[in-house]
Parts: sequence; C-alpha cells; structure tokens
Amino acid sequence: MKLVVIGGDAAGMSAASQARKRLGTDRLEIVAFERGRFTSYSACGIPYWIGGAVDDLDALIARSPEAHRKAGIDLRMRHEVTAIDTANREVVARDLVGGGEVRESFDHLVYATGATPVTPEWAQGPASGVFGVQTLDDGTAIQEWLDGEPAPRTAVVIGGGYIGVEMAEAMLKRGLDVTLLEKSAQPMGKTVDPEVGALVAEAIRGQGIKVVTEAHVDGLSAAGGRVRAVVTPAGEVPADIVVLGLGVRPNSALAAAAGLPVGPTGGVRTDRQMRVEGTENIWAAGDCVETRHLITGEPVHVPLGTHANKQGRVAGINLAGGYASFPGVIGTAVTKVCELEVARTGLTEKEATHAGYEYVTALVESTSRAGYYPGASKMTIKLIAERRTGTLLGAQIVGKAEAAKRIDALAVAVWNRMSVEEMTALDLSYAPPFAPVWDPVLIAARKATEAVHAAT
Amino acid sequence: MKLVVIGGDAAGMSAASQARKRLGTDRLEIVAFERGRFTSYSACGIPYWIGGAVDDLDALIARSPEAHRKAGIDLRMRHEVTAIDTANREVVARDLVGGGEVRESFDHLVYATGATPVTPEWAQGPASGVFGVQTLDDGTAIQEWLDGEPAPRTAVVIGGGYIGVEMAEAMLKRGLDVTLLEKSAQPMGKTVDPEVGALVAEAIRGQGIKVVTEAHVDGLSAAGGRVRAVVTPAGEVPADIVVLGLGVRPNSALAAAAGLPVGPTGGVRTDRQMRVEGTENIWAAGDCVETRHLITGEPVHVPLGTHANKQGRVAGINLAGGYASFPGVIGTAVTKVCELEVARTGLTEKEATHAGYEYVTALVESTSRAGYYPGASKMTIKLIAERRTGTLLGAQIVGKAEAAKRIDALAVAVWNRMSVEEMTALDLSYAPPFAPVWDPVLIAARKATEAVHAAT
Repeated sequence: MKLVVIGGDAAGMSAASQARKRLGTDRLEIVAFERGRFTSYSACGIPYWIGGAVDDLDALIARSPEAHRKAGIDLRMRHEVTAIDTANREVVARDLVGGGEVRESFDHLVYATGATPVTPEWAQGPASGVFGVQTLDDGTAIQEWLDGEPAPRTAVVIGGGYIGVEMAEAMLKRGLDVTLLEKSAQPMGKTVDPEVGALVAEAIRGQGIKVVTEAHVDGLSAAGGRVRAVVTPAGEVPADIVVLGLGVRPNSALAAAAGLPVGPTGGVRTDRQMRVEGTENIWAAGDCVETRHLITGEPVHVPLGTHANKQGRVAGINLAGGYASFPGVIGTAVTKVCELEVARTGLTEKEATHAGYEYVTALVESTSRAGYYPGASKMTIKLIAERRTGTLLGAQIVGKAEAAKRIDALAVAVWNRMSVEEMTALDLSYAPPFAPVWDPVLIAARKATEAVHAAT
Repeated sequence: MKLVVIGGDAAGMSAASQARKRLGTDRLEIVAFERGRFTSYSACGIPYWIGGAVDDLDALIARSPEAHRKAGIDLRMRHEVTAIDTANREVVARDLVGGGEVRESFDHLVYATGATPVTPEWAQGPASGVFGVQTLDDGTAIQEWLDGEPAPRTAVVIGGGYIGVEMAEAMLKRGLDVTLLEKSAQPMGKTVDPEVGALVAEAIRGQGIKVVTEAHVDGLSAAGGRVRAVVTPAGEVPADIVVLGLGVRPNSALAAAAGLPVGPTGGVRTDRQMRVEGTENIWAAGDCVETRHLITGEPVHVPLGTHANKQGRVAGINLAGGYASFPGVIGTAVTKVCELEVARTGLTEKEATHAGYEYVTALVESTSRAGYYPGASKMTIKLIAERRTGTLLGAQIVGKAEAAKRIDALAVAVWNRMSVEEMTALDLSYAPPFAPVWDPVLIAARKATEAVHAAT
C-alpha cells in the first residue's frame, strides 16, 4: 500500500507518523511532498523566535526531514504538488529546486497544504519588507530582513489578532518602534468581546506599542524597492517592515481543482475521521480544512497547531485501518500579550448572537491566588450562558500569571454543555497558592447563575 | 423568623451571610455562637502564616466579628453550644469567658461545628508544645510557641498528609530542624499513588526536611512540662515542638447527643440542600458533615475550606427559601510542597480498587510550556480509567510552576464522566507560553486510551 502526503508540517507529518507507527515499511510506502524548507515545526513559536525569547530556529523544529526519512518516510523537500488526479490516484509535483515534474501514484492521499496569510491587493506590489507569518520560511524571511541592512527601525503590524499582537510584541523586543493598526474598535476584536479587548489594548499600549484602532489602510509607500510607510487616511505611518496579521485562508485551490469538496469557509470538507467527503481514500487535515463548531453546529475554519496535530493523528490512524475521530472544535484559544494572558473558549457575545442565542453574561474580577498569598494577581473572567437553560456558551479570561490556563476547565464545561448552575458545585482545586477559597471560575458561575435566574 | 448558627467560621458564617442577603433584619434574626476568638478565616492559610509567606494574621480573616455584627448578625464569641433541643427548638450555650449559660430558641438551626485534629492517646498527656492545626486559635498557639522562650530548634511533624507537609515546610522556613514521620510508605499516601508520593518525598527531602516513612510513634518524652522528643522504636527524635498532621474528625458529638443522624464517617448526614436528614429546619455544613463521593456513591468526610464555603452558602440559600444544592465531591485537592505542586481529583488506584473498579492507568511526563519556550518545566500526569468503558476515574499531577491547576480541567472531565477516548479530542488551549502543542492532559488521555484498547 502506498500513502502520499501533501504538506510536511504538523498535520501531514502527524498523519504519516501515525500511519507508519501502525504499518511498517513492509506494509506501507509513504511519500511526502513539502514545498518549503522545513518539516514538523511550531509555527506558533515564530513570534517568540523573532522576539528573542527562543534562541534557536532548530528549537522550533519538532522533527527534521532527516528524522522523518529515518522513520521510513520518503520525503521530497522543495516539491510542490500541482495536481491531483483522483480517478487515477496520482499526484503531480514540481521540483522547485531541480526543476521538472514527478508523478506518484497513491492508494491513500493525505491533503495537508496549510493556509496562506490574507494579503490585500495593496500589499501585493513589488515593495520588499512586507511579510505574512504562516510558515517557518516566512519566519526566516522576517528574521533575515530584521538582521539585514539597512537595519529596520520602524514596524507596522496590520491586524490585531493573535499573530498581530504577538508579532507587535516581538518587534518591540527587537527594539523597533512599533505601530499596530486594527480596523475594529479593539485589538483581538474577533476573538474576545470589546471590554476584554480593551484590557488587551491597554496592556499593549502600556508596553510602548502604538495601537491605532478603527484604522484603514490605503496602501504602502516604498523607496528603492523597499517599503517605507503604510499609507492611511490619517497620514503615513513609517514602516521599515510591515507584518500582515489579517488572518489566513485555507490552501484548498489544489483540492478544488481536483474536484474535492470545499466548504463555505474555503476549507476542504471532511467527516469526523478526517476523510474528505465523497472519497474513500483521501484524507485532509490541518489549516486547509474546515471543521465543525460543536456549539453552533456551523462549519468553521480554525487554523491552530493543536487542531492540525490532532486531525493529522486521526487521519493517520484511520487510513491505517484504526479508528479515531475529530468531532470538531469549541473555539478555545489562548495567547500572552506582553505580561497579559488572554484566553477564550466557546462563543463570544457576537458569535452567540450570530448563532441565534439569547444569553446572559457575568463579568467578575478575582485573583489568581488567595488574596493574602504572595504573588496573587488580578484576573477577570467573563461567562456567557444561554438564557433560560443556563448552558455555558462561552468564557473569556484576562489576567497576569496563572490566569489563562484556567480556560481549560471552562472548555471542558462548554464541551459537556454544563449549566452555570451545575458549575457552581464543581469540585475545583483549592489551596492558597493556587486560588481564593472561591475559585474565580466558581465566582463567575455563581454570578452567571444569578443572571440566569434574573432573566427567567 | 430566627436563625441560630453554631460555629463562626466558613460554613456557618457563609450560611448566615447568604440568609441575611436574602432576608433583611426585619424578616430574620440571626444569632451565631463561636467558641473561639476568630470568625470567617482561612484555616488553609495557617501554614503560610506560620512559615512567614503571609505577614499578618489579619490577612487570613475574611470577615471579623465586627463586620458580621454590622451586617446584622448577633455574634456571640467565646460561646460554646453544649446542647441542642430539637423538640423545643432551643440551644444552650456556655459563655467561656464570663461564665454562665444562655438559651436561644430557633426556627432554623445551622450546625457548623467544624472538626478536631486526631490526637492519639500518647499525645494527650500534659506536655506542652504539641499542636494540632485546625483553627486559627491553633495557629496563634503555634505562633506563640515558636516565638516563646526557650526558642524551639527542632520540630517533628507526625503525619505526611497536606497539613503535615505544609507545616513541615513552614517549620523549615522558620529555621527549625524538621523531621516528618509518616506511617505509610510515602508522604501523602492517602492522597496520591505511591509513585507520585515518591516524587513528593524526594522534593521534601531535597529541601532539607528529614522524612521517615513507615514510622511508628510510641509516645513523647518531656522535660519541665515541655515536649523534648518523639519516642519511636528507632530511638528518640528531638522535638521542641510537635505538630500533629493525622487528619481531623468531624465535631458531631453535639449533634449525635441531640439525636441528629451521624453517618459512617462520623459526619452529620444531610441531603443535597444541606438539610440534616430527618429534620425540617436543621442544616449542617462544613468540616462536621459527611458528603457523597460522586464517583463511588459512598459517604465521605472531606474537610476542605472550599466545600465548607459552598455548603454554607447552599444551606443559607435554602433556609431562606431559595434553592441551591451541593451534590457531593469528587476528591479534588491541591497543595504546594516546597517548589513542588501536587494535585489530584477523582479516585486513586487504592480508592478505585476499594470501590470495585477494574481500571487501567497511564503515566506521562511532559512540560508545562512548549519545550523551547523559556521557563518550561517538567510535569507528570497520571490518569486512571475504567477498564472497558474508559471512563476517567481519577487523575494526579505533580510538577513545578503551572502544573497543578491543570487538575481542574481533569476534575470537570471526571465530573462529567468523560471517557479518556473522548478526552483526546478536547479543545484545550494551546500557545507556546502555556503548553506544548499536545497539552500534557491530551497526551495522558491518548496514552490512557491506548491502555483501554490494549485491555479490551
């Protein structure tokens, strides 16, 4: 049997590794194509490498091409697959270095092509110094630009989502003068509700990053082929480097061209085994697929490393004759912006409204440890619960150290569709170094329960 | 209407405060008796106050007698209730300072008498310098002894449970030469499985505390009325102070004498509203009650501040005509021993066996953050899952910073009777400062799933 994998990062190589673990080289041949220069790396770590918290590029690489080859995977680096022939079970790949084309037949195919940063038309010009942040090749390009001559002194980050705020902080740590342009009223406006986003904005500004909200970008100005400024209706913002943090789009064009189903989010459609819908032997995983939101039931595109790894593993187990499933996501995410930890799970207010829920909210301030215990710091929790039923729909946390990972308990509660009233009884851990005697999660559940009662 | 409360700490005063919140002074009279000198304090904070991490006694007090009186609660300090007449709805209390007796009638009674440290016969002699650690009065007595003359230089802590290890560390921080005597094979032997307890023992020893396991105590030796040593079959262990960490017993004798039901654990029996079984108007909460283990269904006595607060609140809401419930516990607990964080939820192997479960286990080592991210530290997670069904029965975590609070996500999973297989799909938060791309909880769930498959 022969498996062909398109894409050598988290999803594709997780699938390959799982399949290899179950079927030895005598039973399964594996060929993998990767158009870039790296395999199995942590794209999420790029901002920390740029910012200097992580010294070494190699630290971001979980498994090198050599390691994969040792595991019996025929890995073709710098090869881009250009066509999939589902009828004849064959792919065509171009050798980006040596030139020429190769053809490989397959019994099973794993489609794991990832995603590409959204790049508006004005950013597609010839000016150099404009970067998206998606692949490790993107990361090395940014690193080279920052280390190059003339040394960049000003940076503009466009888009205040996770990648945007993380990259803004990284640039600041590199000593650049940084401006963050965000089109909505608050950074992380897609991720958290406005009052939580306001806390993020305050923290970023406190570190010395200029944050411009409700910003519009007209284009770029360049000199000598290098970007010099971002042009806005309010004037030019100096930029020796521009980083795009406008989100990513699934790389599904190749799949679409092969007649594979692409959903409303632009991602490839699969079932919960990660089998591409309507096929028997084609699997897809990672940033190129759409998945299901388990609360709303709607298709969503959530490009996160944790999902890519899980989906790849599931695809690999199933194609090798096992059984595993990836039922969907509930929108959990976390980031650290300067010293501020920000986390969310489930639905924001906007998402809940969009999904047709009536809901109540509760916002509480508490502390990470008992108030009297050294190192206690303030944290804010917001809960969103369905009106009447009190079912927990979503949660957001902002705080300093030890705040954000508490979102996991809330994520498990959302996953299990707990009501906030039942949550008030939850047996969560308590000791003074870890929580006040009423854990912030419990205080929030109590307040949300009161809001549910008041609304019914 | 008149409410009488017996016991002025977490459970009793939470009940009183909730009742007061719902019914003003015009509708509800509240009389509360407390035999000690403090109200509404954090007993869990005592070791940190003794050890010096918390400067001030007052920091441990959430609400002083004066604050309660201002809220319209007629609080009688240093009054010990000596009898309850359920037929005539009356209590008798002795004034421990002024002498004499008072009688108070009630419409509702809250029984919140707490617990008392287990004190073996050999520790009940006349030697001074032997302390349990349960009330803040106990805490001040220890503090005075440590500050007194002659200054204690050696300490023996008997019993290696939470309180024992926390007090051992506190004594060490006070500069004493500390020995911990534990009768079982590992400290925290009732709390965690042996291989996890071994990590705790290693950490304690690493700090300079002598840990003697499988220790037997024959008695104490004293001189001039002061304790001098703990006598063991292996010889005398010098002890200018002895701290008992042998657990606590519910103070249910007063209830039993009044004909109220006491369960097999020695705790007062209540329903989920915290109403004493067989009564209409008597409520009980806190360390004096027994509750239900939600996994085994068995009655258990779990004296923890977090339960006392919840139970008191529930009792107060219900007696004031509202509705709230405390369904039971799942055995979640956490502590910090030196730099080691230790947490558990659900059942240990011993408890699972005792409850008649067949189970599989998984033990994984991972890191608190992405391996490449600064400050990542090692953590160990153990899961116990029912054989065949894979239902998560229990979890234990040991690690450094940021490890233990992850038990909450596992506690919510146990609470919801998730299978470890479903847990592998959980949408937990991931970003390099917070977790590896496979969160340790997910890795453990994967390994436990493999164990379940292998066993079926």
